Amino acid sequence: MITILSGGTGTPKLIQGIKKIYDEEEINVIVNTVENDYFSGVYVAADIDTVLYTFTDMINEDTWYGIKNDTFITHERLAEIGQAELLRIGDKDRATKIQKTLLLEEYPLSEAVDIQRKKLGIKSKIIPMSNENSEIKIETEEHGEVEFHDFLIKYQGKPKVKSVNYSKVNPNPEVIESIKKSDKIIIGPSNPITSIMPIISLKGVKDELIKKEVVAVSPFIGEEPVSGPAGKFMSASGHLSSSIGVAKIYESFLNTLIIDNKDLDMKETLEKIIPNIKITNTIMKNIEDKINLAKLTIEN
Amino acid sequence: MITILSGGTGTPKLIQGIKKIYDEEEINVIVNTVENDYFSGVYVAADIDTVLYTFTDMINEDTWYGIKNDTFITHERLAEIGQAELLRIGDKDRATKIQKTLLLEEYPLSEAVDIQRKKLGIKSKIIPMSNENSEIKIETEEHGEVEFHDFLIKYQGKPKVKSVNYSKVNPNPEVIESIKKSDKIIIGPSNPITSIMPIISLKGVKDELIKKEVVAVSPFIGEEPVSGPAGKFMSASGHLSSSIGVAKIYESFLNTLIIDNKDLDMKETLEKIIPNIKITNTIMKNIEDKINLAKLTIEN
Repeated sequence: MITILSGGTGTPKLIQGIKKIYDEEEINVIVNTVENDYFSGVYVAADIDTVLYTFTDMINEDTWYGIKNDTFITHERLAEIGQAELLRIGDKDRATKIQKTLLLEEYPLSEAVDIQRKKLGIKSKIIPMSNENSEIKIETEEHGEVEFHDFLIKYQGKPKVKSVNYSKVNPNPEVIESIKKSDKIIIGPSNPITSIMPIISLKGVKDELIKKEVVAVSPFIGEEPVSGPAGKFMSASGHLSSSIGVAKIYESFLNTLIIDNKDLDMKETLEKIIPNIKITNTIMKNIEDKINLAKLTIEN
Repeated sequence: MITILSGGTGTPKLIQGIKKIYDEEEINVIVNTVENDYFSGVYVAADIDTVLYTFTDMINEDTWYGIKNDTFITHERLAEIGQAELLRIGDKDRATKIQKTLLLEEYPLSEAVDIQRKKLGIKSKIIPMSNENSEIKIETEEHGEVEFHDFLIKYQGKPKVKSVNYSKVNPNPEVIESIKKSDKIIIGPSNPITSIMPIISLKGVKDELIKKEVVAVSPFIGEEPVSGPAGKFMSASGHLSSSIGVAKIYESFLNTLIIDNKDLDMKETLEKIIPNIKITNTIMKNIEDKINLAKLTIEN
Protein backbone atom coordinates (compact mmCIF):
# COMPACT_ATOMS: atom_id res chain seq x y z
CA MET A 1 0.00 0.00 0.00
CA ILE A 2 1.21 3.50 -0.86
CA THR A 3 -0.10 6.93 0.05
CA ILE A 4 0.35 9.84 -2.33
CA LEU A 5 0.08 13.45 -1.12
CA SER A 6 -1.46 15.51 -3.91
CA GLY A 7 -2.32 18.98 -5.06
CA GLY A 8 -3.85 19.80 -8.41
CA THR A 9 -1.46 19.53 -11.37
CA GLY A 10 1.97 17.91 -10.98
CA THR A 11 0.94 15.05 -8.73
CA PRO A 12 -2.04 13.98 -10.89
CA LYS A 13 0.40 13.66 -13.82
CA LEU A 14 2.52 11.37 -11.67
CA ILE A 15 -0.61 9.43 -10.63
CA GLN A 16 -1.26 8.72 -14.32
CA GLY A 17 2.08 6.90 -14.32
CA ILE A 18 1.68 5.21 -10.93
CA LYS A 19 -1.75 3.75 -11.75
CA LYS A 20 -0.20 2.03 -14.79
CA ILE A 21 2.37 0.18 -12.68
CA TYR A 22 0.72 -0.28 -9.28
CA ASP A 23 -2.50 -1.99 -8.13
CA GLU A 24 -5.16 0.75 -7.95
CA GLU A 25 -6.67 -0.80 -4.82
CA GLU A 26 -3.33 -0.32 -3.06
CA ILE A 27 -3.11 3.41 -3.79
CA ASN A 28 -4.47 6.04 -1.40
CA VAL A 29 -4.32 9.70 -2.34
CA ILE A 30 -4.50 12.41 0.32
CA VAL A 31 -5.67 15.61 -1.34
CA ASN A 32 -5.28 19.21 -0.30
CA THR A 33 -8.59 20.92 0.58
CA VAL A 34 -7.59 24.43 1.67
CA GLU A 35 -8.56 25.90 -1.71
CA ASN A 36 -12.10 24.45 -1.57
CA ASP A 37 -14.94 26.95 -1.59
CA TYR A 38 -18.43 27.65 -2.90
CA PHE A 39 -18.70 29.20 -6.37
CA SER A 40 -22.00 29.82 -8.25
CA GLY A 41 -23.81 27.97 -5.48
CA VAL A 42 -21.79 24.75 -5.79
CA TYR A 43 -18.97 23.41 -3.63
CA VAL A 44 -15.77 23.38 -5.66
CA ALA A 45 -13.04 20.99 -4.51
CA ALA A 46 -10.83 21.57 -7.51
CA ASP A 47 -7.89 19.35 -6.49
CA ILE A 48 -10.14 16.47 -5.44
CA ASP A 49 -12.07 16.62 -8.72
CA THR A 50 -8.80 16.73 -10.67
CA VAL A 51 -7.71 13.54 -8.89
CA LEU A 52 -11.15 11.92 -9.53
CA TYR A 53 -10.92 12.77 -13.22
CA THR A 54 -7.29 11.62 -13.38
CA PHE A 55 -8.27 8.15 -12.17
CA THR A 56 -11.19 7.94 -14.65
CA ASP A 57 -9.07 9.25 -17.55
CA MET A 58 -11.48 12.16 -17.99
CA ILE A 59 -9.12 14.92 -16.89
CA ASN A 60 -8.66 17.90 -19.19
CA GLU A 61 -4.89 17.74 -19.64
CA ASP A 62 -4.70 21.24 -21.11
CA THR A 63 -5.79 22.89 -17.87
CA TRP A 64 -5.57 20.04 -15.30
CA TYR A 65 -8.95 21.24 -14.18
CA GLY A 66 -12.33 19.84 -15.24
CA ILE A 67 -13.30 17.22 -17.82
CA LYS A 68 -11.79 16.94 -21.30
CA ASN A 69 -14.08 17.84 -24.21
CA ASP A 70 -16.60 19.29 -21.77
CA THR A 71 -19.08 21.95 -22.92
CA PHE A 72 -19.69 25.28 -21.18
CA ILE A 73 -23.32 26.02 -22.00
CA THR A 74 -24.45 26.97 -18.48
CA HIS A 75 -21.19 28.86 -17.85
CA GLU A 76 -21.59 30.91 -21.03
CA ARG A 77 -25.29 31.55 -20.44
CA LEU A 78 -24.51 32.79 -16.92
CA ALA A 79 -22.17 35.37 -18.44
CA GLU A 80 -24.82 36.39 -20.99
CA ILE A 81 -27.41 37.07 -18.27
CA GLY A 82 -24.97 39.09 -16.16
CA GLN A 83 -23.94 36.40 -13.67
CA ALA A 84 -20.41 35.58 -14.89
CA GLU A 85 -18.66 32.86 -12.86
CA LEU A 86 -15.09 33.26 -11.64
CA LEU A 87 -14.38 29.59 -12.31
CA ARG A 88 -14.92 28.13 -15.77
CA ILE A 89 -17.18 25.20 -14.81
CA GLY A 90 -18.06 22.79 -17.62
CA ASP A 91 -21.49 21.18 -17.95
CA LYS A 92 -20.40 17.63 -17.08
CA ASP A 93 -17.99 18.91 -14.44
CA ARG A 94 -20.88 20.88 -12.90
CA ALA A 95 -22.74 17.60 -12.34
CA THR A 96 -19.82 16.38 -10.17
CA LYS A 97 -19.93 19.64 -8.23
CA ILE A 98 -23.74 19.60 -7.82
CA GLN A 99 -23.55 16.02 -6.58
CA LYS A 100 -20.81 16.87 -4.07
CA THR A 101 -22.80 19.89 -2.85
CA LEU A 102 -25.92 17.76 -2.33
CA LEU A 103 -23.94 14.96 -0.63
CA LEU A 104 -22.39 17.54 1.72
CA GLU A 105 -25.89 18.27 3.03
CA GLU A 106 -25.82 14.75 4.50
CA TYR A 107 -22.21 13.63 4.79
CA PRO A 108 -18.77 14.97 5.72
CA LEU A 109 -16.53 15.73 2.73
CA SER A 110 -14.55 12.47 3.08
CA GLU A 111 -17.72 10.37 2.76
CA ALA A 112 -19.09 12.53 -0.06
CA VAL A 113 -15.84 12.00 -2.01
CA ASP A 114 -15.83 8.27 -1.18
CA ILE A 115 -19.38 7.95 -2.57
CA GLN A 116 -18.33 9.85 -5.69
CA ARG A 117 -15.17 7.84 -6.37
CA LYS A 118 -17.12 4.59 -5.98
CA LYS A 119 -19.85 5.80 -8.37
CA LEU A 120 -17.07 6.61 -10.84
CA GLY A 121 -15.62 3.09 -10.42
CA ILE A 122 -12.35 4.30 -8.89
CA LYS A 123 -10.64 1.61 -6.80
CA SER A 124 -8.09 3.88 -5.13
CA LYS A 125 -9.16 5.75 -2.02
CA ILE A 126 -9.26 9.53 -2.39
CA ILE A 127 -8.88 11.11 1.03
CA PRO A 128 -9.58 14.83 1.58
CA MET A 129 -6.98 16.15 4.04
CA SER A 130 -9.73 17.63 6.23
CA ASN A 131 -13.51 17.67 6.54
CA GLU A 132 -13.37 21.22 7.87
CA ASN A 133 -13.92 24.37 5.84
CA SER A 134 -10.84 26.45 5.34
CA GLU A 135 -9.64 29.61 3.68
CA ILE A 136 -6.46 30.44 1.86
CA LYS A 137 -5.47 34.01 1.19
CA ILE A 138 -2.54 35.53 -0.62
CA GLU A 139 -1.10 38.77 0.71
CA THR A 140 0.02 40.75 -2.33
CA GLU A 141 1.93 43.98 -2.71
CA GLU A 142 -0.44 45.52 -5.26
CA HIS A 143 -3.88 44.40 -4.05
CA GLY A 144 -3.43 43.55 -0.36
CA GLU A 145 -4.93 40.25 0.79
CA VAL A 146 -6.78 38.44 -2.00
CA GLU A 147 -8.64 35.14 -2.21
CA PHE A 148 -6.54 32.29 -3.64
CA HIS A 149 -8.77 31.83 -6.70
CA ASP A 150 -8.85 35.57 -7.33
CA PHE A 151 -5.05 35.55 -7.22
CA LEU A 152 -4.86 32.72 -9.76
CA ILE A 153 -7.71 33.70 -12.07
CA LYS A 154 -8.64 37.37 -11.69
CA TYR A 155 -5.02 38.49 -11.24
CA GLN A 156 -3.59 35.58 -13.27
CA GLY A 157 -0.98 34.87 -10.58
CA LYS A 158 0.84 38.12 -11.49
CA PRO A 159 0.96 40.18 -8.26
CA LYS A 160 4.05 40.11 -6.05
CA VAL A 161 3.36 37.80 -3.09
CA LYS A 162 4.17 38.90 0.44
CA SER A 163 2.76 35.90 2.30
CA VAL A 164 0.49 32.88 1.99
CA ASN A 165 -2.01 32.31 4.81
CA TYR A 166 -4.41 29.44 5.29
CA SER A 167 -6.70 28.22 8.04
CA LYS A 168 -5.45 25.69 10.53
CA VAL A 169 -7.82 22.72 10.32
CA ASN A 170 -7.99 19.28 11.88
CA PRO A 171 -7.10 16.26 9.78
CA ASN A 172 -9.71 13.86 8.49
CA PRO A 173 -8.85 10.78 10.65
CA GLU A 174 -8.29 8.68 7.52
CA VAL A 175 -5.21 10.79 6.73
CA ILE A 176 -3.24 9.44 9.70
CA GLU A 177 -4.63 5.90 9.22
CA SER A 178 -3.60 5.87 5.57
CA ILE A 179 -0.03 6.99 6.32
CA LYS A 180 0.25 4.43 9.14
CA LYS A 181 -0.87 1.56 6.90
CA SER A 182 1.37 2.50 3.96
CA ASP A 183 4.73 1.02 3.04
CA LYS A 184 5.71 4.20 1.30
CA ILE A 185 4.58 7.81 1.10
CA ILE A 186 5.00 9.66 -2.19
CA ILE A 187 4.90 13.44 -2.28
CA GLY A 188 4.08 14.45 -5.82
CA PRO A 189 5.55 17.45 -7.65
CA SER A 190 2.83 19.79 -6.40
CA ASN A 191 3.27 23.27 -4.99
CA PRO A 192 5.02 22.71 -1.60
CA ILE A 193 3.53 25.84 0.00
CA THR A 194 -0.13 25.79 -1.00
CA SER A 195 -0.69 22.10 -1.81
CA ILE A 196 1.66 19.91 0.27
CA MET A 197 2.44 21.98 3.38
CA PRO A 198 -1.27 22.25 4.33
CA ILE A 199 -1.33 18.42 4.44
CA ILE A 200 2.01 18.01 6.21
CA SER A 201 1.24 20.62 8.85
CA LEU A 202 -1.97 18.83 9.90
CA LYS A 203 -1.74 17.69 13.51
CA GLY A 204 0.04 14.32 13.76
CA VAL A 205 1.05 13.99 10.10
CA LYS A 206 4.74 14.90 10.44
CA ASP A 207 5.13 12.50 13.39
CA GLU A 208 3.86 9.65 11.21
CA LEU A 209 5.89 10.67 8.16
CA ILE A 210 9.10 10.49 10.21
CA LYS A 211 8.44 6.77 10.79
CA LYS A 212 7.91 6.04 7.10
CA GLU A 213 9.84 5.75 3.85
CA VAL A 214 9.00 9.07 2.17
CA VAL A 215 9.95 10.01 -1.40
CA ALA A 216 9.23 13.38 -3.00
CA VAL A 217 9.46 14.62 -6.57
CA SER A 218 10.68 18.20 -6.76
CA PRO A 219 8.35 20.51 -8.68
CA PHE A 220 11.32 22.78 -9.55
CA ILE A 221 13.89 22.82 -12.31
CA GLY A 222 16.54 25.38 -11.44
CA GLU A 223 14.70 28.30 -9.89
CA GLU A 224 11.53 27.78 -11.92
CA PRO A 225 8.55 25.62 -10.96
CA VAL A 226 7.47 23.19 -13.71
CA SER A 227 4.03 24.84 -13.58
CA GLY A 228 2.09 27.44 -11.62
CA PRO A 229 3.08 30.08 -9.08
CA ALA A 230 5.07 27.83 -6.69
CA GLY A 231 8.16 30.01 -7.02
CA LYS A 232 6.45 33.15 -5.77
CA PHE A 233 4.89 31.27 -2.87
CA MET A 234 8.26 29.73 -1.91
CA SER A 235 10.03 33.09 -1.84
CA ALA A 236 7.19 34.78 0.02
CA SER A 237 7.32 32.02 2.64
CA GLY A 238 11.07 32.53 3.13
CA HIS A 239 12.25 29.53 1.12
CA LEU A 240 14.59 29.25 -1.84
CA SER A 241 12.65 28.88 -5.06
CA SER A 242 14.41 25.65 -6.12
CA SER A 243 14.82 21.98 -5.19
CA ILE A 244 17.04 23.17 -2.33
CA GLY A 245 14.10 25.10 -0.89
CA VAL A 246 11.92 22.00 -1.31
CA ALA A 247 14.55 19.83 0.45
CA LYS A 248 14.66 22.23 3.40
CA ILE A 249 10.86 22.16 3.75
CA TYR A 250 10.72 18.35 3.70
CA GLU A 251 14.05 17.83 5.52
CA SER A 252 12.71 16.46 8.83
CA PHE A 253 10.99 13.41 7.31
CA LEU A 254 12.11 12.96 3.68
CA ASN A 255 14.25 9.93 2.69
CA THR A 256 14.48 10.47 -1.07
CA LEU A 257 14.19 13.55 -3.26
CA ILE A 258 13.90 13.11 -7.00
CA ILE A 259 15.21 16.08 -8.96
CA ASP A 260 15.56 16.84 -12.65
CA ASN A 261 18.64 15.96 -14.72
CA LYS A 262 19.16 19.69 -15.28
CA ASP A 263 19.76 20.17 -11.54
CA LEU A 264 22.73 17.80 -11.39
CA ASP A 265 24.82 20.67 -10.02
CA MET A 266 22.59 20.84 -6.91
CA LYS A 267 23.11 17.16 -6.06
CA GLU A 268 26.03 17.69 -3.72
CA THR A 269 24.27 20.42 -1.75
CA LEU A 270 21.06 18.41 -1.62
CA GLU A 271 22.84 15.33 -0.27
CA LYS A 272 23.75 17.34 2.79
CA ILE A 273 20.02 17.84 3.48
CA ILE A 274 18.29 14.64 2.26
CA PRO A 275 19.85 11.14 2.58
CA ASN A 276 19.03 9.97 -0.93
CA ILE A 277 18.95 12.13 -4.09
CA LYS A 278 17.85 10.63 -7.40
CA ILE A 279 18.21 12.32 -10.74
CA THR A 280 15.95 11.79 -13.75
CA ASN A 281 13.74 13.62 -16.23
CA THR A 282 10.94 15.14 -14.11
CA ILE A 283 9.06 16.87 -16.94
CA MET A 284 6.13 14.59 -17.72
CA LYS A 285 5.28 15.28 -21.34
CA ASN A 286 3.87 11.85 -22.20
CA ILE A 287 2.82 8.61 -20.57
CA GLU A 288 6.32 7.12 -20.90
CA ASP A 289 7.76 10.05 -18.92
CA LYS A 290 5.05 9.55 -16.31
CA ILE A 291 5.67 5.80 -15.99
CA ASN A 292 9.45 6.28 -15.77
CA LEU A 293 9.07 8.83 -12.99
CA ALA A 294 6.44 6.65 -11.27
CA LYS A 295 8.85 3.68 -11.31
CA LEU A 296 11.55 5.74 -9.66
CA THR A 297 9.17 6.76 -6.85
CA ILE A 298 7.84 3.22 -6.30
CA GLU A 299 10.98 1.13 -6.67
CA ASN A 300 13.81 1.83 -4.32
CA MET B 1 -52.38 49.00 -17.81
CA ILE B 2 -53.51 45.41 -17.41
CA THR B 3 -52.62 42.77 -14.85
CA ILE B 4 -52.60 39.11 -15.84
CA LEU B 5 -52.81 36.34 -13.22
CA SER B 6 -50.74 33.43 -14.41
CA GLY B 7 -49.78 29.85 -13.77
CA GLY B 8 -47.52 27.79 -15.97
CA THR B 9 -49.07 26.67 -19.27
CA GLY B 10 -52.40 28.08 -20.47
CA THR B 11 -51.81 31.67 -19.42
CA PRO B 12 -48.34 31.94 -21.01
CA LYS B 13 -49.93 30.87 -24.32
CA LEU B 14 -52.44 33.71 -23.91
CA ILE B 15 -49.57 36.08 -23.03
CA GLN B 16 -47.99 35.25 -26.41
CA GLY B 17 -51.15 36.69 -27.97
CA ILE B 18 -51.51 39.66 -25.62
CA LYS B 19 -47.92 40.84 -26.11
CA LYS B 20 -48.57 41.05 -29.87
CA ILE B 21 -51.49 43.46 -29.44
CA TYR B 22 -50.71 45.37 -26.23
CA ASP B 23 -47.82 47.60 -25.14
CA GLU B 24 -45.43 45.36 -23.18
CA GLU B 25 -44.68 48.17 -20.73
CA GLU B 26 -48.37 48.25 -19.82
CA ILE B 27 -48.57 44.55 -18.94
CA ASN B 28 -47.99 43.25 -15.41
CA VAL B 29 -48.07 39.51 -14.74
CA ILE B 30 -48.69 38.17 -11.24
CA VAL B 31 -47.30 34.65 -11.07
CA ASN B 32 -48.10 31.78 -8.76
CA THR B 33 -45.23 30.81 -6.44
CA VAL B 34 -46.64 28.00 -4.27
CA GLU B 35 -44.93 25.34 -6.38
CA ASN B 36 -41.48 26.93 -5.98
CA ASP B 37 -38.85 24.83 -4.26
CA TYR B 38 -35.18 23.85 -4.26
CA PHE B 39 -34.13 21.02 -6.58
CA SER B 40 -30.53 19.87 -7.18
CA GLY B 41 -29.37 22.80 -5.09
CA VAL B 42 -31.07 25.49 -7.19
CA TYR B 43 -34.27 27.44 -6.56
CA VAL B 44 -36.85 26.44 -9.12
CA ALA B 45 -39.65 28.92 -9.78
CA ALA B 46 -41.07 27.01 -12.72
CA ASP B 47 -44.05 29.25 -13.49
CA ILE B 48 -41.99 32.43 -13.20
CA ASP B 49 -39.33 31.06 -15.54
CA THR B 50 -41.99 29.95 -18.00
CA VAL B 51 -43.33 33.53 -18.04
CA LEU B 52 -39.77 34.95 -18.42
CA TYR B 53 -39.10 32.62 -21.37
CA THR B 54 -42.52 33.38 -22.88
CA PHE B 55 -41.69 37.10 -23.02
CA THR B 56 -38.25 36.43 -24.56
CA ASP B 57 -39.67 33.92 -27.08
CA MET B 58 -37.35 31.25 -25.64
CA ILE B 59 -40.04 29.05 -24.12
CA ASN B 60 -40.06 25.36 -25.00
CA GLU B 61 -43.60 25.09 -26.40
CA ASP B 62 -43.59 21.30 -26.28
CA THR B 63 -43.43 21.20 -22.49
CA TRP B 64 -44.14 24.83 -21.47
CA TYR B 65 -41.20 24.42 -19.17
CA GLY B 66 -37.60 25.44 -19.84
CA ILE B 67 -35.88 26.83 -22.94
CA LYS B 68 -36.46 25.55 -26.48
CA ASN B 69 -33.56 23.66 -28.08
CA ASP B 70 -31.81 23.51 -24.71
CA THR B 71 -29.27 20.75 -24.02
CA PHE B 72 -29.31 18.48 -20.96
CA ILE B 73 -25.63 17.69 -20.47
CA THR B 74 -25.47 18.34 -16.71
CA HIS B 75 -28.87 16.70 -16.18
CA GLU B 76 -27.82 13.54 -18.03
CA ARG B 77 -24.43 13.42 -16.33
CA LEU B 78 -26.12 13.71 -12.91
CA ALA B 79 -28.17 10.60 -13.76
CA GLU B 80 -25.01 8.76 -14.91
CA ILE B 81 -23.24 9.41 -11.61
CA GLY B 82 -26.23 8.32 -9.53
CA GLN B 83 -27.68 11.75 -8.72
CA ALA B 84 -30.74 11.79 -11.02
CA GLU B 85 -32.76 15.01 -10.79
CA LEU B 86 -36.55 14.94 -10.42
CA LEU B 87 -36.87 17.96 -12.71
CA ARG B 88 -35.42 17.89 -16.21
CA ILE B 89 -33.32 21.07 -16.04
CA GLY B 90 -31.64 22.15 -19.28
CA ASP B 91 -28.15 23.66 -19.39
CA LYS B 92 -29.24 27.19 -20.36
CA ASP B 93 -32.28 26.98 -18.11
CA ARG B 94 -29.97 25.98 -15.24
CA ALA B 95 -28.15 29.31 -15.65
CA THR B 96 -31.46 31.15 -14.97
CA LYS B 97 -31.99 29.01 -11.89
CA ILE B 98 -28.41 29.43 -10.61
CA GLN B 99 -28.73 33.19 -11.05
CA LYS B 100 -32.04 33.30 -9.19
CA THR B 101 -30.56 31.17 -6.38
CA LEU B 102 -27.58 33.50 -6.04
CA LEU B 103 -29.77 36.64 -6.21
CA LEU B 104 -31.98 35.18 -3.46
CA GLU B 105 -28.95 35.27 -1.14
CA GLU B 106 -29.21 39.07 -1.36
CA TYR B 107 -32.72 40.00 -2.46
CA PRO B 108 -36.36 38.97 -1.93
CA LEU B 109 -37.81 36.89 -4.77
CA SER B 110 -39.65 39.87 -6.31
CA GLU B 111 -36.41 41.84 -6.69
CA ALA B 112 -34.49 38.80 -7.93
CA VAL B 113 -37.10 38.27 -10.65
CA ASP B 114 -37.14 42.00 -11.48
CA ILE B 115 -33.35 41.92 -11.94
CA GLN B 116 -33.67 38.86 -14.15
CA ARG B 117 -36.45 40.21 -16.36
CA LYS B 118 -34.50 43.44 -16.88
CA LYS B 119 -31.33 41.50 -17.81
CA LEU B 120 -33.46 39.58 -20.32
CA GLY B 121 -34.79 42.85 -21.78
CA ILE B 122 -38.40 42.20 -20.76
CA LYS B 123 -40.44 45.40 -20.47
CA SER B 124 -43.45 43.88 -18.69
CA LYS B 125 -43.29 43.53 -14.91
CA ILE B 126 -43.27 39.96 -13.64
CA ILE B 127 -44.57 39.91 -10.07
CA PRO B 128 -44.21 36.81 -7.88
CA MET B 129 -47.41 36.47 -5.80
CA SER B 130 -45.37 36.21 -2.59
CA ASN B 131 -41.80 36.52 -1.37
CA GLU B 132 -42.42 33.85 1.24
CA ASN B 133 -41.55 30.19 0.91
CA SER B 134 -44.51 27.89 0.56
CA GLU B 135 -45.39 24.26 0.15
CA ILE B 136 -48.07 22.56 -1.90
CA LYS B 137 -49.03 18.97 -1.26
CA ILE B 138 -51.50 16.67 -2.95
CA GLU B 139 -53.37 14.18 -0.77
CA THR B 140 -53.79 11.07 -2.91
CA GLU B 141 -55.70 7.85 -2.35
CA GLU B 142 -52.85 5.54 -3.33
CA HIS B 143 -49.78 7.28 -1.91
CA GLY B 144 -51.09 9.55 0.85
CA GLU B 145 -49.77 13.12 0.86
CA VAL B 146 -47.19 13.71 -1.89
CA GLU B 147 -45.17 16.73 -2.99
CA PHE B 148 -46.71 18.60 -5.92
CA HIS B 149 -43.78 17.89 -8.25
CA ASP B 150 -43.72 14.23 -7.22
CA PHE B 151 -47.43 14.06 -8.07
CA LEU B 152 -46.85 15.57 -11.51
CA ILE B 153 -43.56 13.89 -12.43
CA LYS B 154 -42.93 10.78 -10.33
CA TYR B 155 -46.59 9.72 -10.38
CA GLN B 156 -47.34 11.42 -13.73
CA GLY B 157 -50.50 13.04 -12.32
CA LYS B 158 -52.19 9.60 -12.20
CA PRO B 159 -53.19 9.05 -8.53
CA LYS B 160 -56.73 9.84 -7.40
CA VAL B 161 -56.69 13.21 -5.62
CA LYS B 162 -58.40 13.63 -2.26
CA SER B 163 -57.34 17.20 -1.55
CA VAL B 164 -54.92 19.95 -2.52
CA ASN B 165 -53.19 21.80 0.34
CA TYR B 166 -50.84 24.75 0.16
CA SER B 167 -49.26 27.15 2.64
CA LYS B 168 -50.97 30.41 3.44
CA VAL B 169 -48.48 33.17 2.61
CA ASN B 170 -48.54 36.95 2.59
CA PRO B 171 -48.72 38.75 -0.74
CA ASN B 172 -45.76 40.56 -2.22
CA PRO B 173 -47.00 44.21 -1.82
CA GLU B 174 -46.63 44.78 -5.58
CA VAL B 175 -49.53 42.35 -6.15
CA ILE B 176 -52.10 44.68 -4.60
CA GLU B 177 -50.48 47.77 -6.14
CA SER B 178 -50.56 46.22 -9.60
CA ILE B 179 -54.24 45.29 -9.37
CA LYS B 180 -55.11 48.78 -8.03
CA LYS B 181 -53.31 50.51 -10.93
CA SER B 182 -54.78 48.31 -13.65
CA ASP B 183 -57.76 49.05 -15.90
CA LYS B 184 -58.41 45.38 -16.34
CA ILE B 185 -57.44 42.09 -14.73
CA ILE B 186 -57.10 39.03 -16.94
CA ILE B 187 -57.17 35.57 -15.42
CA GLY B 188 -55.58 33.24 -17.90
CA PRO B 189 -56.67 29.66 -18.61
CA SER B 190 -54.46 28.22 -15.85
CA ASN B 191 -55.41 25.62 -13.30
CA PRO B 192 -57.90 27.42 -10.98
CA ILE B 193 -57.02 25.31 -7.91
CA THR B 194 -53.21 25.18 -7.90
CA SER B 195 -52.31 28.25 -10.02
CA ILE B 196 -54.99 30.95 -9.68
CA MET B 197 -56.62 30.32 -6.28
CA PRO B 198 -53.30 30.69 -4.42
CA ILE B 199 -53.08 34.22 -5.91
CA ILE B 200 -56.74 35.12 -5.36
CA SER B 201 -56.75 33.89 -1.77
CA LEU B 202 -53.84 36.16 -0.81
CA LYS B 203 -54.90 38.68 1.81
CA GLY B 204 -56.53 41.73 0.17
CA VAL B 205 -56.57 40.44 -3.41
CA LYS B 206 -60.26 39.53 -3.65
CA ASP B 207 -61.27 42.92 -2.17
CA GLU B 208 -59.34 44.67 -4.95
CA LEU B 209 -60.60 42.35 -7.70
CA ILE B 210 -64.22 43.16 -6.76
CA LYS B 211 -63.56 46.84 -7.64
CA LYS B 212 -62.07 45.99 -11.05
CA GLU B 213 -63.13 44.78 -14.49
CA VAL B 214 -62.05 41.11 -14.37
CA VAL B 215 -62.13 38.74 -17.32
CA ALA B 216 -61.18 35.05 -17.15
CA VAL B 217 -60.59 32.44 -19.82
CA SER B 218 -61.89 29.02 -18.78
CA PRO B 219 -59.27 26.27 -18.92
CA PHE B 220 -62.03 23.67 -19.49
CA ILE B 221 -63.84 22.33 -22.51
CA GLY B 222 -66.72 20.19 -21.35
CA GLU B 223 -65.47 18.31 -18.32
CA GLU B 224 -61.88 18.13 -19.54
CA PRO B 225 -59.15 20.67 -18.86
CA VAL B 226 -57.30 21.81 -22.00
CA SER B 227 -54.08 20.58 -20.35
CA GLY B 228 -52.83 19.16 -17.07
CA PRO B 229 -54.53 17.74 -14.00
CA ALA B 230 -56.94 20.65 -13.34
CA GLY B 231 -59.98 18.33 -13.49
CA LYS B 232 -58.78 16.13 -10.63
CA PHE B 233 -57.89 19.13 -8.52
CA MET B 234 -61.34 20.72 -9.14
CA SER B 235 -63.22 17.57 -8.12
CA ALA B 236 -61.02 16.99 -5.08
CA SER B 237 -61.67 20.58 -3.99
CA GLY B 238 -65.44 20.09 -4.26
CA HIS B 239 -65.94 21.92 -7.57
CA LEU B 240 -67.44 20.78 -10.85
CA SER B 241 -64.74 19.91 -13.35
CA SER B 242 -66.03 22.29 -16.05
CA SER B 243 -66.48 25.98 -16.86
CA ILE B 244 -69.40 25.95 -14.42
CA GLY B 245 -66.99 24.98 -11.62
CA VAL B 246 -64.64 27.75 -12.75
CA ALA B 247 -67.50 30.28 -12.76
CA LYS B 248 -68.47 29.33 -9.20
CA ILE B 249 -64.88 29.77 -7.98
CA TYR B 250 -64.54 33.23 -9.57
CA GLU B 251 -68.19 34.25 -9.02
CA SER B 252 -67.66 36.94 -6.36
CA PHE B 253 -65.48 39.19 -8.55
CA LEU B 254 -65.63 38.02 -12.19
CA ASN B 255 -67.28 40.21 -14.85
CA THR B 256 -66.62 38.16 -17.96
CA LEU B 257 -65.93 34.47 -18.53
CA ILE B 258 -64.69 33.33 -21.91
CA ILE B 259 -65.61 29.74 -22.72
CA ASP B 260 -65.08 27.49 -25.72
CA ASN B 261 -67.49 27.24 -28.66
CA LYS B 262 -68.04 23.60 -27.72
CA ASP B 263 -69.59 24.69 -24.41
CA LEU B 264 -72.37 26.71 -26.01
CA ASP B 265 -74.88 24.55 -24.09
CA MET B 266 -73.50 25.82 -20.76
CA LYS B 267 -74.04 29.47 -21.69
CA GLU B 268 -77.47 29.79 -20.14
CA THR B 269 -76.40 28.23 -16.85
CA LEU B 270 -73.21 30.31 -16.77
CA GLU B 271 -75.13 33.57 -17.33
CA LYS B 272 -76.86 32.95 -14.01
CA ILE B 273 -73.44 33.00 -12.28
CA ILE B 274 -71.30 35.51 -14.26
CA PRO B 275 -72.71 38.73 -15.84
CA ASN B 276 -71.00 38.36 -19.19
CA ILE B 277 -70.25 35.11 -21.03
CA LYS B 278 -68.27 35.17 -24.28
CA ILE B 279 -67.89 32.23 -26.60
CA THR B 280 -64.94 31.61 -28.88
CA ASN B 281 -62.27 29.06 -29.75
CA THR B 282 -60.16 28.74 -26.56
CA ILE B 283 -57.73 26.12 -27.86
CA MET B 284 -54.58 28.06 -28.75
CA LYS B 285 -52.87 25.99 -31.43
CA ASN B 286 -51.15 28.83 -33.27
CA ILE B 287 -50.37 32.52 -32.94
CA GLU B 288 -53.60 33.51 -34.70
CA ASP B 289 -55.64 31.57 -32.10
CA LYS B 290 -53.64 33.28 -29.35
CA ILE B 291 -54.13 36.77 -30.79
CA ASN B 292 -57.88 36.19 -31.34
CA LEU B 293 -58.32 35.06 -27.75
CA ALA B 294 -56.10 37.91 -26.50
CA LYS B 295 -58.26 40.45 -28.36
CA LEU B 296 -61.41 39.10 -26.73
CA THR B 297 -59.84 39.46 -23.26
CA ILE B 298 -58.53 42.98 -23.92
CA GLU B 299 -61.37 44.53 -25.94
CA ASN B 300 -64.76 44.61 -24.31
